[in-house]
Amino acid sequence: MRRSGARRTTPASAPSAPRRVAARVAAMAAPPQSWLESQGAFRVGVPALDHFPHGVWSRLLSRHARHVGADALVYGDTLGYAPLREAIAEYLATVRAAHAGAGQILITSGAQHGLQICAHALLDPGDRAWVEEPGYPGAHQALGTVGALPVLVPVDAEGLDVAAGIRRAPTARLAYVTPSHQFPLGATLSAARRIELLQWAARTGGWIVEDDYDSEYRYGSRPIAALQGLDADARVIYVGTFSKVLFPALRLGYLVAPKDLLPAFRASRDALDTCSPMLPQRALHDFIREGHFARHIRRMRVLYATRRAALQAAIQRHLPGTLQVVGAEAGMQLTALLPPEVDDVALSLRAAQAGVSVRPLSPCYRGDVKRNGLILGYGSVDERAIEEGVRRLRRCL
Amino acid sequence: MRRSGARRTTPASAPSAPRRVAARVAAMAAPPQSWLESQGAFRVGVPALDHFPHGVWSRLLSRHARHVGADALVYGDTLGYAPLREAIAEYLATVRAAHAGAGQILITSGAQHGLQICAHALLDPGDRAWVEEPGYPGAHQALGTVGALPVLVPVDAEGLDVAAGIRRAPTARLAYVTPSHQFPLGATLSAARRIELLQWAARTGGWIVEDDYDSEYRYGSRPIAALQGLDADARVIYVGTFSKVLFPALRLGYLVAPKDLLPAFRASRDALDTCSPMLPQRALHDFIREGHFARHIRRMRVLYATRRAALQAAIQRHLPGTLQVVGAEAGMQLTALLPPEVDDVALSLRAAQAGVSVRPLSPCYRGDVKRNGLILGYGSVDERAIEEGVRRLRRCL
Repeated sequence: MRRSGARRTTPASAPSAPRRVAARVAAMAAPPQSWLESQGAFRVGVPALDHFPHGVWSRLLSRHARHVGADALVYGDTLGYAPLREAIAEYLATVRAAHAGAGQILITSGAQHGLQICAHALLDPGDRAWVEEPGYPGAHQALGTVGALPVLVPVDAEGLDVAAGIRRAPTARLAYVTPSHQFPLGATLSAARRIELLQWAARTGGWIVEDDYDSEYRYGSRPIAALQGLDADARVIYVGTFSKVLFPALRLGYLVAPKDLLPAFRASRDALDTCSPMLPQRALHDFIREGHFARHIRRMRVLYATRRAALQAAIQRHLPGTLQVVGAEAGMQLTALLPPEVDDVALSLRAAQAGVSVRPLSPCYRGDVKRNGLILGYGSVDERAIEEGVRRLRRCL
Repeated sequence: MRRSGARRTTPASAPSAPRRVAARVAAMAAPPQSWLESQGAFRVGVPALDHFPHGVWSRLLSRHARHVGADALVYGDTLGYAPLREAIAEYLATVRAAHAGAGQILITSGAQHGLQICAHALLDPGDRAWVEEPGYPGAHQALGTVGALPVLVPVDAEGLDVAAGIRRAPTARLAYVTPSHQFPLGATLSAARRIELLQWAARTGGWIVEDDYDSEYRYGSRPIAALQGLDADARVIYVGTFSKVLFPALRLGYLVAPKDLLPAFRASRDALDTCSPMLPQRALHDFIREGHFARHIRRMRVLYATRRAALQAAIQRHLPGTLQVVGAEAGMQLTALLPPEVDDVALSLRAAQAGVSVRPLSPCYRGDVKRNGLILGYGSVDERAIEEGVRRLRRCL
């Protein structure tokens, strides 16, 4: 074995050749995001981990780790473990009024992965895709991978402004939407806009990617069915994740594709990373079928309602004129607008130094007109930490 | 909750709008690959699963499934679990003469995922990349995602013909190579070619992606150090996988990047699927540190040498004039050339019907000149199954 002391190529004595990375990452590999460093108040996207039934989960993992027939060890089906796909299909039909046979489900490693698969399967370089403005940064990342171009479409109190999208890019190949709880401003896509959007897709051949994050938790109003359930033309691809209902380190999610798109989605998954690991899929199947999943969501719904109320009350107590809360109807986070003169990025850096994680709103805008605000997660913090976090935030202001 | 019986959009009475998928998958979602259906003889890429220390692995998983502090449940570091990265860095330095600090390691979900991350981080649409011809189909898939263009570079007994690559595309952005055991023809990249390739990269600014699959198992000759270890200009990105030394359903691998590329690779991973699951990383860390990994590889090296000998002997016994074995020096598979008049794809379909999995060679060629042959894996089959598989194969011919 030649060791590192052996002959290596001599570094060129001429100036070094360029060390270029792809343009798509050169801009992204950019300022550190301080709000990601803390796990406490008010980290976005992290559920109540101390309330997760770890004992149950651990037992299910061990059950499947022991039984290791070859079928559990070889490359799995690209679409995922069939019994889990069946369990998800039933859950979606019951809880989200989504139409899906098990054969339309593809297991992913989470929402970002799901968005990436959609982009890979549906978009050619140069294709245009509607993205909500402000919107989810991950959608921009997914488009950038395949060379598709985002068309920024404004949102208002009814959600995505479909008419504006049609004006800006009537023949866009795809629309990325968060209809249950618009990220980041929180609006629910109204019934009228849902019809408009579906009709646009049916008329033009556009695809709709519905990112239904946080739909499990809704407060004070009737649950909203998935857009996909209204779709008679099979133009919606539904993306879901288990990161926020279970725990993020699990890396499991799913998407629901129209039947005729399955070969394309299969090919995309194969190209990106082949298939999902088997063990967590088997454990999750049992977790759903044995009733733990539904039970856990019910308990968390109550817990998050309490935490949401605590956060809103704390804001009202300590920062009533400064933070204007929007988008609190669902999920595990709310957005609070700041006065225009407050730099939300600078504020989040100060807050991080004070041990408080607040995600600034303005980077969610890709156009020239931005609003300052903060996205505050309340899933993973108890009421005491919420109160303390808001106090510290006030001191940073 | 509106149920599925409620109002849905009326399907357009006009002819349906087009249902177009991306061009990159329209061609891929193509003929079924019959050789993937069977897990027995001679499935390529599957290790000896019945010899894997399941009890040990199961115990390590359970150990970590029980201890579930928040740090094990939240989104992990994009680069992966730091102690595992350290363990891999040490392993590579010792066993592959590769130069890497733990900070240069990124945990992936396998080789395909690693290739995809490389393409995302390093290639712009339209960039040209050398791919061995015949070569690894997964490399083409990774290039296709980001709109890069493959340049087919022939291989000979010394491996990649670097001079031919320079003639065809002197300013290619990247070269994808399998220097330890060329896929699929099996040549080892000679010392002279290694120097040529590294000098090309240093001179032009090209990157080299070294896919070191199967390097753990080498027969009858001295181990070959990784190309990355000879690289004084930090132009090599090294891609490894645990699928074939542990088991494919685990979905863990790694890549080693030059230090200055880490921000780009981090950004790419974040865009594609954020991070890897925590539990298997922790179990794998212990598996390596407690010596089980090294022990397992040593035992498998002996086992595979036996199986390889059995396969070569069976071929000599039953098909001496028909199959010409090449590329048997390493790994868990060998390639056998067929006479030009034998259609290897048709043969693989017939063999699949007879319960034998043989991967045809000709689809690994993307150019007009192809050779017929079979890629036969011997990792997962015992000597009796090898003998029976070769007999059945003979009947199919």
